Amino acid sequence: MVGSVVAGGVDPRPFAAAIIAVGSELLTPEKVDTNSLFITQTLNDLGIAVAFKSIVGDDRAELTAHVAHALQRHRVLILTGGLGPTDDDLTREVVAAHLGLAMHEDPEIITVMERRFASRGWTMPAVNRRQAQVPEGATVLANPNGTAPGLWLTHDGAVIALLPGPPREMKPMMAGEVRSRLLALAGDTRLHRRLVRVSGKGESAVEEIVQPIYSRWLAQDPRIETTILAGLGQVELHLVLQSTDAARAALVLAVAVAELTAALGQDVVSTDGRGLEAVVGDLLRARGWWVALAESCTGGLATSRLTDVPGSSDYVERSVVAYSNQAKVELLGVPAALIQDHGAVSEAVAVAMAEGIRDRAGVNVGVGITGIAGPGGGSDDKPVGTVCIAVAGALTEVRTFRFPGGREMVKAMSANWAIDLLRRQLLT
Amino acid sequence: MVGSVVAGGVDPRPFAAAIIAVGSELLTPEKVDTNSLFITQTLNDLGIAVAFKSIVGDDRAELTAHVAHALQRHRVLILTGGLGPTDDDLTREVVAAHLGLAMHEDPEIITVMERRFASRGWTMPAVNRRQAQVPEGATVLANPNGTAPGLWLTHDGAVIALLPGPPREMKPMMAGEVRSRLLALAGDTRLHRRLVRVSGKGESAVEEIVQPIYSRWLAQDPRIETTILAGLGQVELHLVLQSTDAARAALVLAVAVAELTAALGQDVVSTDGRGLEAVVGDLLRARGWWVALAESCTGGLATSRLTDVPGSSDYVERSVVAYSNQAKVELLGVPAALIQDHGAVSEAVAVAMAEGIRDRAGVNVGVGITGIAGPGGGSDDKPVGTVCIAVAGALTEVRTFRFPGGREMVKAMSANWAIDLLRRQLLT
Repeated sequence: MVGSVVAGGVDPRPFAAAIIAVGSELLTPEKVDTNSLFITQTLNDLGIAVAFKSIVGDDRAELTAHVAHALQRHRVLILTGGLGPTDDDLTREVVAAHLGLAMHEDPEIITVMERRFASRGWTMPAVNRRQAQVPEGATVLANPNGTAPGLWLTHDGAVIALLPGPPREMKPMMAGEVRSRLLALAGDTRLHRRLVRVSGKGESAVEEIVQPIYSRWLAQDPRIETTILAGLGQVELHLVLQSTDAARAALVLAVAVAELTAALGQDVVSTDGRGLEAVVGDLLRARGWWVALAESCTGGLATSRLTDVPGSSDYVERSVVAYSNQAKVELLGVPAALIQDHGAVSEAVAVAMAEGIRDRAGVNVGVGITGIAGPGGGSDDKPVGTVCIAVAGALTEVRTFRFPGGREMVKAMSANWAIDLLRRQLLT
Repeated sequence: MVGSVVAGGVDPRPFAAAIIAVGSELLTPEKVDTNSLFITQTLNDLGIAVAFKSIVGDDRAELTAHVAHALQRHRVLILTGGLGPTDDDLTREVVAAHLGLAMHEDPEIITVMERRFASRGWTMPAVNRRQAQVPEGATVLANPNGTAPGLWLTHDGAVIALLPGPPREMKPMMAGEVRSRLLALAGDTRLHRRLVRVSGKGESAVEEIVQPIYSRWLAQDPRIETTILAGLGQVELHLVLQSTDAARAALVLAVAVAELTAALGQDVVSTDGRGLEAVVGDLLRARGWWVALAESCTGGLATSRLTDVPGSSDYVERSVVAYSNQAKVELLGVPAALIQDHGAVSEAVAVAMAEGIRDRAGVNVGVGITGIAGPGGGSDDKPVGTVCIAVAGALTEVRTFRFPGGREMVKAMSANWAIDLLRRQLLT
């Protein structure tokens, strides 16, 4: 569907979407609109692009101006928020007024709401009647997770969805009724995605390797668009392809993923969406191995991340956060002389920690992490960010890093590298 | 300053701000604009309200429409992003074209950029010349952290700032040159803030207590607005007050904070912005006490959070993540019979863990955490989310919780409560 017929010819507006999040709290320095991410994904999957997003307070004039601006330019408008029962909640009214639609009270909505309140032993407050106001011609979208029903309107070649603000109410409505209505209007084109997770290289280093590859993809038919997202010590490559042919799209993406994997080698953590911790968990489980960790500067973060994975008690046996030298000696059997000779932050101590925890816990592989997270404790020789990480499995490997950034960044990078070095040893 | 004189009378537009974030990557399902939070805070502190925020891709027509829409309605426009050297970066061009301003190359910007590249041993690529294009009448804002300079324009009663997208480039420019220019234009009203952090109560329980208090504040003069933000196990109360009188504002807010503190008692973690971990650290340091932790279901998260605070090596001695029963016996001296009789997740075992780590580490206070993070491992008797937490200092206290949510939420809530129970014991 490329344009709908309107008086005087084909609608010049694209079948692209504007998203407006409504609520004054979203204009404070503390809150960010995240609803639009889920909405964008749902729209993109149907091949519908998002042209812009706006965040508007509970202000009649401002919201009216934004609704007008959106509908002037695009044929899909998704609004979230402002459907509550109070005077601040203006979305229904503003949209109806802008489109010149009268509102009426829907007795069925009243019944559903009264039943909802009654099931909790409450009487419906009078203010909630506002939520039963429906513009003429609108379809009511049921909200099993809250009082505010959604609304679906078609008007003058455009479609407009009004969704509640709370994510647990908005998401099922967007993924259900709104998606299925848009599906009937959207073309046959769908968005197909693959995610390649990379570890052990920074964003620019990854970009240097993959840029020649994805530039080629942009020129080919079907075209693949690549987005690079960098987190602390991890890089995500998001591949998206628009196609009407799902089987062909899957094949083209599989070839693309194989190309990236060949170029990036062991830096590729997963091509199926699994996170680093889950990949390491699967590798340990496949061998029937147990791991134990000895952490210092990471303060337990590496173990906490490994144990974010359900079922990690199958392969994480224990860990020790040996913050003091005494703890390193007592709990890990690191020789006091070794600490004295090499310093607590040294490859020798990292190795002794990894081997110490492995042997004391009686597990297959141990990890040792010692470093200076800062901001204090650095020296010319070993500045803040110096971290030594050892993995002691069938063989023992150790590396020294100099991480940039503040304390939390050093902790995060160290934990990530420790888990990644473990992954690399398990691959061999 | 209430309105500027324009041809025909006073400018009808408010001295309120629109923020436009530019970049197609900000319209993907993965990325969220966070620049606007910092910008909002800086504007609000000057008494300038944010009327709306928009996020627009690298699209000439769309960006032009949004710039026009913003300037039609408001007299402050802050744009971030789209100042890079590539063809995709359109912000400079679009703003200049919309205002009908010619562009010229600024030789000083070229010199600064060439020097920047030279200092790294590189030659400036030709594409970067784009970044030296300046609309006539614009003031160049230096960017010590990147190549793209910012721009400041006054036009027809409005002010427009073009800032780079990377936060480390945008923030100093916003807090420096843009803020000081806005300060000269803004009225005498400033925003004054206080933050009260609360732990140990859910959002609705806190709201029930404080709602009668902050409703009163809304009616008083000067009026205080309160925002409640809930995280995992923590609630933040943000108090803001607009006033031209800083001393009076500080006094009114101090009285308000005292009122909240009286109503919430020991649930108040801090009134000076410090986080829970920092508060606990200060309490330990004040006593000269050391802490050690024995974690099971939290997998090291509680220790990791405590050690996010710089200088925490002054009071965190060690911790043990005893995931397996064997580790609980070996490392903490928990009697195997106790685990057998009561189960690993029991108050008796939590107490034995806390006392065990305290005594073995020779510290003043020990914390023990044992529970079922899920999704597996639950039973009718002890469902997923059951967590026992003990604090063993001068006296030993233990509590059992039933946390809702998934694995990561149970871990986060458990770690938070463990640190909070430690805080409460240190208060007595």
